[in-house]
Amino acid sequence: MELGIIGLGKMGGNMAERLRRGGHTVVGYDRNPDVSDVASLEELVERLTPPRAVWVMVPAGEPTRDTIHRLGELLQPGDVVVDGGNSHYVDDQRHGAELAAKGIGFVDCGVSGGVWGLENGYALMVGGEDEHVKRLMPIFETLKPEGEYGFVHAGRNGAGHFVKMVHNGIEYAMMQAFGEGYELIEASGLVDNVAETFRSWQEGTVIRSWLLDLMNRALADDPHLEEIRGYAEDSGEGRWTVQAAVDHAVPLPAITASLYARFASRQDDSPAMKVVAALRNQFGGHAVESAKGADSPGADVAAPPA
Amino acid sequence: MELGIIGLGKMGGNMAERLRRGGHTVVGYDRNPDVSDVASLEELVERLTPPRAVWVMVPAGEPTRDTIHRLGELLQPGDVVVDGGNSHYVDDQRHGAELAAKGIGFVDCGVSGGVWGLENGYALMVGGEDEHVKRLMPIFETLKPEGEYGFVHAGRNGAGHFVKMVHNGIEYAMMQAFGEGYELIEASGLVDNVAETFRSWQEGTVIRSWLLDLMNRALADDPHLEEIRGYAEDSGEGRWTVQAAVDHAVPLPAITASLYARFASRQDDSPAMKVVAALRNQFGGHAVESAKGADSPGADVAAPPA
Amino acid sequence: MELGIIGLGKMGGNMAERLRRGGHTVVGYDRNPDVSDVASLEELVERLTPPRAVWVMVPAGEPTRDTIHRLGELLQPGDVVVDGGNSHYVDDQRHGAELAAKGIGFVDCGVSGGVWGLENGYALMVGGEDEHVKRLMPIFETLKPEGEYGFVHAGRNGAGHFVKMVHNGIEYAMMQAFGEGYELIEASGLVDNVAETFRSWQEGTVIRSWLLDLMNRALADDPHLEEIRGYAEDSGEGRWTVQAAVDHAVPLPAITASLYARFASRQDDSPAMKVVAALRNQFGGHAVESAKGADSPGADVAAPPA
Amino acid sequence: MELGIIGLGKMGGNMAERLRRGGHTVVGYDRNPDVSDVASLEELVERLTPPRAVWVMVPAGEPTRDTIHRLGELLQPGDVVVDGGNSHYVDDQRHGAELAAKGIGFVDCGVSGGVWGLENGYALMVGGEDEHVKRLMPIFETLKPEGEYGFVHAGRNGAGHFVKMVHNGIEYAMMQAFGEGYELIEASGLVDNVAETFRSWQEGTVIRSWLLDLMNRALADDPHLEEIRGYAEDSGEGRWTVQAAVDHAVPLPAITASLYARFASRQDDSPAMKVVAALRNQFGGHAVESAKGADSPGADVAAPPA
Repeated sequence: MELGIIGLGKMGGNMAERLRRGGHTVVGYDRNPDVSDVASLEELVERLTPPRAVWVMVPAGEPTRDTIHRLGELLQPGDVVVDGGNSHYVDDQRHGAELAAKGIGFVDCGVSGGVWGLENGYALMVGGEDEHVKRLMPIFETLKPEGEYGFVHAGRNGAGHFVKMVHNGIEYAMMQAFGEGYELIEASGLVDNVAETFRSWQEGTVIRSWLLDLMNRALADDPHLEEIRGYAEDSGEGRWTVQAAVDHAVPLPAITASLYARFASRQDDSPAMKVVAALRNQFGGHAVESAKGADSPGADVAAPPA
Repeated sequence: MELGIIGLGKMGGNMAERLRRGGHTVVGYDRNPDVSDVASLEELVERLTPPRAVWVMVPAGEPTRDTIHRLGELLQPGDVVVDGGNSHYVDDQRHGAELAAKGIGFVDCGVSGGVWGLENGYALMVGGEDEHVKRLMPIFETLKPEGEYGFVHAGRNGAGHFVKMVHNGIEYAMMQAFGEGYELIEASGLVDNVAETFRSWQEGTVIRSWLLDLMNRALADDPHLEEIRGYAEDSGEGRWTVQAAVDHAVPLPAITASLYARFASRQDDSPAMKVVAALRNQFGGHAVESAKGADSPGADVAAPPA
Repeated sequence: MELGIIGLGKMGGNMAERLRRGGHTVVGYDRNPDVSDVASLEELVERLTPPRAVWVMVPAGEPTRDTIHRLGELLQPGDVVVDGGNSHYVDDQRHGAELAAKGIGFVDCGVSGGVWGLENGYALMVGGEDEHVKRLMPIFETLKPEGEYGFVHAGRNGAGHFVKMVHNGIEYAMMQAFGEGYELIEASGLVDNVAETFRSWQEGTVIRSWLLDLMNRALADDPHLEEIRGYAEDSGEGRWTVQAAVDHAVPLPAITASLYARFASRQDDSPAMKVVAALRNQFGGHAVESAKGADSPGADVAAPPA
Repeated sequence: MELGIIGLGKMGGNMAERLRRGGHTVVGYDRNPDVSDVASLEELVERLTPPRAVWVMVPAGEPTRDTIHRLGELLQPGDVVVDGGNSHYVDDQRHGAELAAKGIGFVDCGVSGGVWGLENGYALMVGGEDEHVKRLMPIFETLKPEGEYGFVHAGRNGAGHFVKMVHNGIEYAMMQAFGEGYELIEASGLVDNVAETFRSWQEGTVIRSWLLDLMNRALADDPHLEEIRGYAEDSGEGRWTVQAAVDHAVPLPAITASLYARFASRQDDSPAMKVVAALRNQFGGHAVESAKGADSPGADVAAPPA
């Protein structure tokens, strides 16, 4: 079928290519004229035959919001828009309502797949109304991996990005689990063959997984991870997962611990632990001297050892 | 080669069978005469040709400790003992030293594989000296899965059970990660197709894993887990993992959160939360009345809302 | 000085009374005509002499937002508004900007004190510009406790409610700490005199505090908390604290654990632990049977014990 | 009454002095002859009139165990020993049984008070049998603070050190709570007067406490804790608390988080976060290259973005 794609960066460009290989007609627009098929959003819309389908693949936040708002002005009733970026699910609900008011369909689509997606397909998680998802199925069928799995219509607008977000939250805790296990094994001083241990787990164990495979590739290059710093960024999805949990009063101790471990990994010094250290100092002799003459209600009470 | 096996329950019996199918000569002893090849430990030892190899597959703790102690009395220098049970790694170090003093080798072996092990092999993680591990390699080769992985000589005595213990700790956090993700998705009210979502993740995602496969089997039977209670036992390994972490000053927030979630799942009511509820109650009017006349330093101070 | 107060419920009514006792002229408005001095917001504004000061003490969220918006229409340049409710600090920043555009001052004020505040004063934490805070100091001086402490001008708009929010976050973790300690002591089976133990800590220890005093009052009535359920609500402030932490990439493990413990205390059954239980079940024999013929990559691999 | 004290360091020396001021007869023994009243343990025992009372105030672990074992050899039936050090409660149970077998009483005593104890008294938490505790009450009465509180007979042997251990666990989480709150306030960029905020909380708030007083002393000297590093040691009691929790299947999320935060504060780099960083790297282009030709089951599957 015919599809417009807005945003032809690494992800959008590869997706356009996979769709063309799959026999679809793709018209791409990018701010960069070198890779763009058309000169403007207006021209993109003109070039597509109604009812149109347009896939937005630009950075989350302001750029996506602006693009979708603009499409709302340019498209016609019966057209459908897909947001394939990393948008917050709350934005999807707003975008869906905004476009629905104009008779335009909206589907949010969480995409997994990275640079290997061109060859092997992308895992897709979509949210939206049945009629819009159905119209786009030829596109989804081409983009997804060849096997039985890798695609889900999770629910209404927002559900696609929501489950992609939760997927990433689960991913955080799984990565943290391997990290903690690795650290304990290294700290034990008991295990001579750490990398071999992780490699052996690839068969017959409960924890075999793609992440374990990745870990083994990393340990193959650098068996004690000496060349890498324990510094980890976090993507918005981990934070959104915790915020959604708090909104829904759902306890997420392992996922949250994993997010916090990343926050802590980026601190040169921990202000919280400065306080703990300062309080411990206050238990000592110096504190007592400095507290002399204080009118605090605690000043005349014994300072116990920590 | 020739091997004595002590303990012919579900695990030991299957392992004996797999070894026989693999061409080894196995003499088994069990307290249950119906399945035992010999009448006593003494007879087992007599029936084996020195230098002997004896595999202990009895419950961890007292039974294993007693059996190994007994073997220390019955065996001769040059023999070797394997503990294939779920022993604590600290016990291994003691058993290794005790047997070494008598010239008897000792290898600890963490075993994964359950009921499928007979057909598909067991993942094995061993600790001990090279010479003892090497002598047992024909046994390990037959027991392990056929592929390239599934066996590691992790280090000296204790290392085998230690890494099996950590494997289980990692497993706890991975299971918790899926549990938390599932709960958040259900709580969101946004996702109509929860089971389909988890099933779709089996391809193309970062979190695809054997545990995800198991989860999909569970959700296939019972898509909202309505027939199962949120009550989870813990095995000793999870507790030992946390205790080892504390011993080594290693922070394990996600694994510990997972263990604690199991503890909490088994409580009808939480004493800690009784305290929190009681304190919240104290902020109210009644508390103030009951505090009348108290000589506590706080009694004359305003009770702020929580 | 002269002050208008909007909202004469338990908190607002008591604050009005304390201010009158302190010599201030208070004009109160409430939807309930029985307690209101004036019939409408319009009349309240008319009754006050410019430059006016108006204290808003209505429920957080919509009611506060509506009231402040309305005051923006009724008041004049040079007037000043105080929000003494439990508003989110983000609202304050918006309210401050909205009123500033009309030349009206805005101060946010976190208030602690509850029913005892009338007699003993309220702890006040304010945010806003110096000139507005200074104008209101006669009011703050009368409302606050008599001692040296209990009032702070924490920073610009939002700072008052922000530090009150963090105060409550700290409170959550302190309450949780006592709860956890209590639970461990009860579980140990080693301590015959639990209530006496907590009571003894009121002097000479590191943890003596007002919350410990409250705990001792609770234990005096019910030494094993048999009459109270381990079920704890949470106020918005705890959630906002965690969300602010996530926004600022600050790890808050103890405060978040305390919030999550409250969430969990309100669940009859934990969906996350259903997953953990289901996965543990899958390790057993039934799972293996149900997996027959499955095309999952894990189906042909041994199911290890948990 | 008459008391022997073994160990006349800072704590033991001050306690001896407080007891003498209180009219008791104290015979002290220390390895350092300059402060010792007697030349040997034997002489100490000889100098005391049966039935004797001997207070052991030496470092926990080996020194305490050796001293108590020695006293078991030197003392007579009817004598009583107090361990006032920081012993593990499990040791107490063993010591109590060992001495009881010889007719000698044993009381374990957790002591809070530090350098201020000499003037203001020590909070005491004791475990042991009624008859032994009663005999020692004159000593406890003199050592404890003057008020109504500060002493408890918590239960049988071990209970004294157990509740002192839990006290310290609670202390960890309270310190962490203040640390987390401080860090969030500093990170917000919204609060100009951080030290003033904490100081204001000393009156009228829920969180007023002795630790808050100590924090205010620390902030008075160094309002942004610029001169202190976020590096915190932990005492054995925090670790023992977590281990006891694991033994009793009690979830202690906030206390454990506080212990782990201290562990993490002492790491230059986190091995766990190296793994997380390595896994994130593996999602990128380099990983894909290094995975070429790998026979891992994951190698032919798309690498999704984190």
